[in-house]
Amino acid sequence: MRTLDWVDGAIEMVDQTKLPQVVETLRIETVADLVAAIERLSVRGAPAIGVAGAYGVALAALRHDPGTDRSGFDAAVASIRSARPTAVNLARMVDRVAPIAAADPAAGLAEAHRIRDEELAASIAMGERGADLVEALMVERAAAGDRDGAAVRVMTICNTGGLAAVERGTALAVVQTLHERGRLAEALPIETRPLLQGGRLTTWELQRMGAPHRLLVDSAGPFLLSRGGADVVLIGADRVAANGDTANKIGSFSLALGAADAGVPFVVVAPESTIDPATASGDDIEIEDRGPDEVASVRGVPVAPDGTPACNPAFDITPVRLITALVTDRRTVRFDRGETL
Amino acid sequence: MRTLDWVDGAIEMVDQTKLPQVVETLRIETVADLVAAIERLSVRGAPAIGVAGAYGVALAALRHDPGTDRSGFDAAVASIRSARPTAVNLARMVDRVAPIAAADPAAGLAEAHRIRDEELAASIAMGERGADLVEALMVERAAAGDRDGAAVRVMTICNTGGLAAVERGTALAVVQTLHERGRLAEALPIETRPLLQGGRLTTWELQRMGAPHRLLVDSAGPFLLSRGGADVVLIGADRVAANGDTANKIGSFSLALGAADAGVPFVVVAPESTIDPATASGDDIEIEDRGPDEVASVRGVPVAPDGTPACNPAFDITPVRLITALVTDRRTVRFDRGETL
Repeated sequence: MRTLDWVDGAIEMVDQTKLPQVVETLRIETVADLVAAIERLSVRGAPAIGVAGAYGVALAALRHDPGTDRSGFDAAVASIRSARPTAVNLARMVDRVAPIAAADPAAGLAEAHRIRDEELAASIAMGERGADLVEALMVERAAAGDRDGAAVRVMTICNTGGLAAVERGTALAVVQTLHERGRLAEALPIETRPLLQGGRLTTWELQRMGAPHRLLVDSAGPFLLSRGGADVVLIGADRVAANGDTANKIGSFSLALGAADAGVPFVVVAPESTIDPATASGDDIEIEDRGPDEVASVRGVPVAPDGTPACNPAFDITPVRLITALVTDRRTVRFDRGETL
Repeated sequence: MRTLDWVDGAIEMVDQTKLPQVVETLRIETVADLVAAIERLSVRGAPAIGVAGAYGVALAALRHDPGTDRSGFDAAVASIRSARPTAVNLARMVDRVAPIAAADPAAGLAEAHRIRDEELAASIAMGERGADLVEALMVERAAAGDRDGAAVRVMTICNTGGLAAVERGTALAVVQTLHERGRLAEALPIETRPLLQGGRLTTWELQRMGAPHRLLVDSAGPFLLSRGGADVVLIGADRVAANGDTANKIGSFSLALGAADAGVPFVVVAPESTIDPATASGDDIEIEDRGPDEVASVRGVPVAPDGTPACNPAFDITPVRLITALVTDRRTVRFDRGETL
């Protein structure tokens, strides 16, 4: 199922703020409503936000009265572009559709469809390529006497599924492909404090795809790996540096340490666009601190004394020495065999 | 401050179920009320439960009408002894006080006071010995060029303070002693999902002692260590095996991996009574799974789809190869120098 699409002349999306207790589809017919939806995180995940932005520009063009001047259209485009200032993908997709839509609204909509279809094709490619790699790794481990090469138990973090990317996603696309191939024994998402995307969103997607799964608190992940509880760890990426160091949701580094200590493969799944040749290594990536509120409360309930100070890094850096391989929509890079980007 | 004590003929304790938002002292004048308080976790932590049980037996003896037969007293003692069936310390302390109190209620109360004072003396000893070790480790690291030997940043997990042990505690006693010596730069408790003892209780104790601190989500701990954010990790212990492997709250193993990877000392602080010579190694320790409810909700708020299955190990095992030293109330064992128990 698609979590975001163009349906009968408007944008429809699953409202992620209400998941998992309420599954509600938002129908968005105006640019103002789209901007509000992006701002309150009803849609999140770089690819999904990019597609939403592309459709928003098409919507603005289709609603624009061609008898008037362009200033209303331009203001609408600017408001979409700045709905999430740090989301590079949003600005890039808005900029791609805007000139086309300004000249021809129908062509703009066609371009937005193309962006959606490109994201979907990338997810399918990552899922297939990643599942091929996981199967190959299991054969290698079985040859080394580690496992019997049967169905695979996959640990993962955050939400890297269709909710983040229209459909299928990145690391979770690999889980889905393994499940479709009958090779998934169990998915083991960690809950991913502070915002609990693993507990709220990934479990919901796994339920929808009928994949067996068990949820873990974050710090149980490395211990379960040490006890032989998973065969591979799959994560997404916010940014991959030129040397392979990977910035991703806080908690990824802990899983990488646990996987390395237990001899379990640790695989990053991300589109080519995530690779940033301008960043030499993880040392050059600044870590955003998102402030104490997310740590001191859970969904509005206080879990620490009022005013408790916190250190809240939004993501962490996994050094390439702990990463077995990177899977993109175009290639597989085996760092464990000395391959480089 | 003491979190549990005998005051004017009854037991008084801080009600831990209401912390940190409400600080309420329970006054307990009957055995039935004590059993209820232990069962609902108003008091938790092995030493604190042991002292509560000892005072409970004294209470039963003092309230017992000497003109009647012993059956009422014996039933009261049995109800205290079984209030938390897995807490070995509770049964041990109840068994120590009961025969004395049966013969002479005042002597029973004196024995309970002695148990309280022994726990307090053990906490003071662990705090001093642990702080001495941390200072020595900082000198060693400074000699190796790692740090300037100034004030210390301490990462810790769960609640190991006065709330668990009448006053001061184990690992948190070391933090408190460092703070009293003017050597603590910052305490960095991790919140400790699923039950959040770090976020709810340790932060509250650090506030009360005026110690600077910042709270972290659990999976931020190893990453902060990798970025040089702490100088030492201090944890308590549920059980220490004969070879030094240590069972403690889930998440301890992740911190140990992070500390080892970053070259940061990792120290276990626990009373001698925690060492179990009958357990050869961590492989012999069975891990209790506490079921899905604690993972799928936080203080009553759902954080996963209804019915989500979970894997919820209550504690984990840190192998001795990752532990720098063990500090007890009687000795310091430097595993990093090849010393053994």
